[in-house]
Amino acid sequence: MGLAGLLLGLVAVPAVLVSTSLRRGAPRAEAEPEPSGWELAADALPEDSLWPLPQRVRTSPRRLQLAPSRFQLVHGAGSSAGPGCGLLQDAFRRYYEYMFGHSRWRAWGRGPLAARAEPELLQLQVVIEAGDPGCDGHPRLASSEACEYRPAASSGRRCALAFPSRAQVCGGAHHLTVTEPVAILKASEVWGALRVEIPFLDIFPGLETFSQLVHEDDYGSFLVNESEINDFPRFAHRGVLLDTSRHYLPLKSILTNLDAMAFNKFNVLHWHIVDDQSFPYQSIYFPELSDKGAYSSNLIYTPTDVRLVIEYARLRGIRVIPEFDTPGHTQSWGKGQKDLLTPCYNRGQPTGSFGPVNPVWNTTYNFMTKFFKEISSVFPDEFIHLGGDEVDFSCWKSNPEVKEFMKKQGFGIDYAKLESYYVQNILEIVSSYNKGQMVWQEVFDHKAQLKPDTVVQVWMANNYASELSRVTRAGFTAVLSAPWYLDYISYGQDWKKYYSVEPLNFPGSEEQKKLLIGGEACLWGEFVDATNLTPRLWPRASAVGERLWSSSNVTNLQDAYKRLTSHRCRMLRRGIAAEPVFVGYCAHEARGP
Amino acid sequence: MGLAGLLLGLVAVPAVLVSTSLRRGAPRAEAEPEPSGWELAADALPEDSLWPLPQRVRTSPRRLQLAPSRFQLVHGAGSSAGPGCGLLQDAFRRYYEYMFGHSRWRAWGRGPLAARAEPELLQLQVVIEAGDPGCDGHPRLASSEACEYRPAASSGRRCALAFPSRAQVCGGAHHLTVTEPVAILKASEVWGALRVEIPFLDIFPGLETFSQLVHEDDYGSFLVNESEINDFPRFAHRGVLLDTSRHYLPLKSILTNLDAMAFNKFNVLHWHIVDDQSFPYQSIYFPELSDKGAYSSNLIYTPTDVRLVIEYARLRGIRVIPEFDTPGHTQSWGKGQKDLLTPCYNRGQPTGSFGPVNPVWNTTYNFMTKFFKEISSVFPDEFIHLGGDEVDFSCWKSNPEVKEFMKKQGFGIDYAKLESYYVQNILEIVSSYNKGQMVWQEVFDHKAQLKPDTVVQVWMANNYASELSRVTRAGFTAVLSAPWYLDYISYGQDWKKYYSVEPLNFPGSEEQKKLLIGGEACLWGEFVDATNLTPRLWPRASAVGERLWSSSNVTNLQDAYKRLTSHRCRMLRRGIAAEPVFVGYCAHEARGP
Repeated sequence: MGLAGLLLGLVAVPAVLVSTSLRRGAPRAEAEPEPSGWELAADALPEDSLWPLPQRVRTSPRRLQLAPSRFQLVHGAGSSAGPGCGLLQDAFRRYYEYMFGHSRWRAWGRGPLAARAEPELLQLQVVIEAGDPGCDGHPRLASSEACEYRPAASSGRRCALAFPSRAQVCGGAHHLTVTEPVAILKASEVWGALRVEIPFLDIFPGLETFSQLVHEDDYGSFLVNESEINDFPRFAHRGVLLDTSRHYLPLKSILTNLDAMAFNKFNVLHWHIVDDQSFPYQSIYFPELSDKGAYSSNLIYTPTDVRLVIEYARLRGIRVIPEFDTPGHTQSWGKGQKDLLTPCYNRGQPTGSFGPVNPVWNTTYNFMTKFFKEISSVFPDEFIHLGGDEVDFSCWKSNPEVKEFMKKQGFGIDYAKLESYYVQNILEIVSSYNKGQMVWQEVFDHKAQLKPDTVVQVWMANNYASELSRVTRAGFTAVLSAPWYLDYISYGQDWKKYYSVEPLNFPGSEEQKKLLIGGEACLWGEFVDATNLTPRLWPRASAVGERLWSSSNVTNLQDAYKRLTSHRCRMLRRGIAAEPVFVGYCAHEARGP
Repeated sequence: MGLAGLLLGLVAVPAVLVSTSLRRGAPRAEAEPEPSGWELAADALPEDSLWPLPQRVRTSPRRLQLAPSRFQLVHGAGSSAGPGCGLLQDAFRRYYEYMFGHSRWRAWGRGPLAARAEPELLQLQVVIEAGDPGCDGHPRLASSEACEYRPAASSGRRCALAFPSRAQVCGGAHHLTVTEPVAILKASEVWGALRVEIPFLDIFPGLETFSQLVHEDDYGSFLVNESEINDFPRFAHRGVLLDTSRHYLPLKSILTNLDAMAFNKFNVLHWHIVDDQSFPYQSIYFPELSDKGAYSSNLIYTPTDVRLVIEYARLRGIRVIPEFDTPGHTQSWGKGQKDLLTPCYNRGQPTGSFGPVNPVWNTTYNFMTKFFKEISSVFPDEFIHLGGDEVDFSCWKSNPEVKEFMKKQGFGIDYAKLESYYVQNILEIVSSYNKGQMVWQEVFDHKAQLKPDTVVQVWMANNYASELSRVTRAGFTAVLSAPWYLDYISYGQDWKKYYSVEPLNFPGSEEQKKLLIGGEACLWGEFVDATNLTPRLWPRASAVGERLWSSSNVTNLQDAYKRLTSHRCRMLRRGIAAEPVFVGYCAHEARGP
């Protein structure tokens, strides 16, 4: 993911921010000693609910009021985006709702606020500095800059969110367009090149952070503390894997979880859309795949559904990477596509059952060429996940035609070579459509000839650090998911286990470390469907979210617990049935089934 | 729970049922060999979705049609209940909905069914033979007959559900009142005595079974196979424990789970209503308990809420046993009731923190006398659960007044004696209100002098068989929950573990075995609230439900798996977000959050 220079909510007189001693520096674990005269109890600190913790948070005790009837999210002066930018307009509306709830407050009069001392914050101005704001674009990995996302490579602020206050700035919208906070402008400049490509990717995290800072006091007033936030993600690829084959997930569940992902600053939906059990993807070229391979005719994703998921994700800065896993995990493909899977044999006779995709027939590659042409066009992301995991060789070994082919190719009895042969053919096909590839680690392990920009996903729990080391030593980009298989459940606060993973803790050079571009929380679907998806995933995946976003030294479990419980309550309020972290309650409890 | 002789849906010509070879005998695991000429695939058998498996199921391949626009649940001729019996009317309406869905089918014309060969079943007649149908009564344990519920003590059929068919019975309602099935009438006679007391308790399981037999075919026709069911529960106490203290559960969640309990033939809601963390029960005499002890002022159960839960449960044949656990687990009580908890000391000084209920002050017993007077009146069940588990003695040991009292009483340093002293006082108080008592096993272990009819709940996982043996050897009634702590979660199909428990597998005489009256699935609330309660409990608790209901030799996991997956889909269709058992799908999938 690239980083836009980001300028959110500049509300004048930055000198105050800079000269005043502010409450907390970053990282959180190293907070400055408490200055005297600041009475806020630790519990009341608005940043105690920030999740994931931004890279740099400075919050002053000075508070601003927000009047829901007057407060606006607007395009700032000098922004290249305007009311015609649907992406941003949609985000403004969404975040307004998150901050102030539904219609409850809007009915309030437009007169002065209740007699309070706090000055009023009237606007959050969003300024896109790139020439083309890219309102119609899709988020991208921007892989060539991946290494630059890390603090080590950083030499200044990148994107920033700041809103100092003065009573005098409340006079009108134009006063709020002051862009004096030097730090923030600097950040924009440094990242100018990137901004041109992907100006919106950081708007969403920025809006998310701002909305998390707005809090409601006991009297129903909305307040925000004068703050300065400098933020950027530690890793560019922050994904959640959903599996719609073991169980079908209704569209609503997927969309709800895209919301939750946005609240946790995830930016990749890895859509494990088909597998052995069912083929819910409705293909335009090969409709029989879902006609015969889906669980039932209404448990499918039509082209319209898929477009909706992609657009809903785009509006939240989330990429959708579809996975079409071959040659294994393809039993459901065989139902709608004859002569695709390998016929298994026993004592020289076909058994009537089938194994992985048949790697020796031309028809296989003809089919895949056409199929992936469609996939490449339907899914706009630069990457397609091609799977390649857990290929069972026994059926191939039983098949005389396959054995003959092995001999002819000189593969001996090394079926991993046959697998690589197959995978390389698929990689060629997909490359020809200008798509990058993600694969599961076996593809690398079995020594397939990979394109240099292939992303290898490390999933085997056993000694994944060594695997990361091997993959990156070979110069490939890696994504880690081994320690984050969230379908495995256990009693208690297992989020701590996910949280305590340090992804870069593997043997390797600085260059190698830069090749680990992120990770994914995987929720495989054997025991998950719409009934339990959301509470099983959230807030456990939030732990992964912070690990992938925040600074490496944000590791204090006690601090994380406090913020996570608040964050979980916020998710509840926003309609995500995230399960409890431990005993307690939220101001807005779940209503129940 | 007592057993009513039960006569459900008699639709003529029982001779056919008796003389025809029927598909399956009971128990299911010992099904008769397949008669030739019966073409139904095993998968299509309607009884493949029965859960819990009735004691005796005989299903013929002969099928009857049900027309939603005509089919009626009615009071049969000779029944002492009529349209004035709200309990039964409510059940009729409910089960009509479960069978036919909402309004979808009712719009159908009242003309003849689609051209099908099957005769039509027009009515299910329910005949209550007791003089007083007891429409306004509450379900009871009927503890004196508890031993009689077991097959060992049985000498005939008890309650029965049968619906043979003949085309000629379809002429009108009156023809359906034929009560010829001799077997069923016999069952009624055997259990006449019990019926007087609790005539409805078996109506619900009976209606549940009937509704489970009605199935919809691919063309939208509703069908039921000619069947004969003889059914009774193996254990009288089949409970689910919900904990509303660690997290508040909204009323809606509790009611939804009462529905699910009914679908699984549970008959006791053990309401662990208060604990250390919060006191959501709004007391009439002591409103400060919840004013100060609840998580918040809206997270309480008002007297109206409590009445609603009790009534909703009653309408489903479910008892509500409230637990007010003392002297430990009472931190939240101390907030609203001064001078109740024991002040803890350190080096001769009060620390400001408090321990268990203070057992040495008279004020404690004055409070408890009044408090349990209220509880005895608010909760109609014959039993109150008094807790008594996990009392931490350290605070008592620190308190000089308590130490003085120990000396005076001659307890030495044995604080278990002090605990027993306290518990006996509470037992006396509650007995004076004519309530039976349930207690956790420690109360027995610590040798409190218990009333003979006290029910001891065995919860400690470590060697619970020995504990069952000791409790029953001492002549006390026992309820088992140790192997069924469903808050402990693990990956995979853990229902098998719960299912494979044999409750009577403990050392003891026949008399001792009779004292084990049932069990409870416990869902403690540390990590459970409205977001995840239902999918975490169901269908895992269903495994416990069948173990407590069905015959002891119903243990085949493969057969159970097949029925449980169907049963889970049925729960989904009825609005219970039960999580999946494994990969697959339901005809009516969950809609998603």
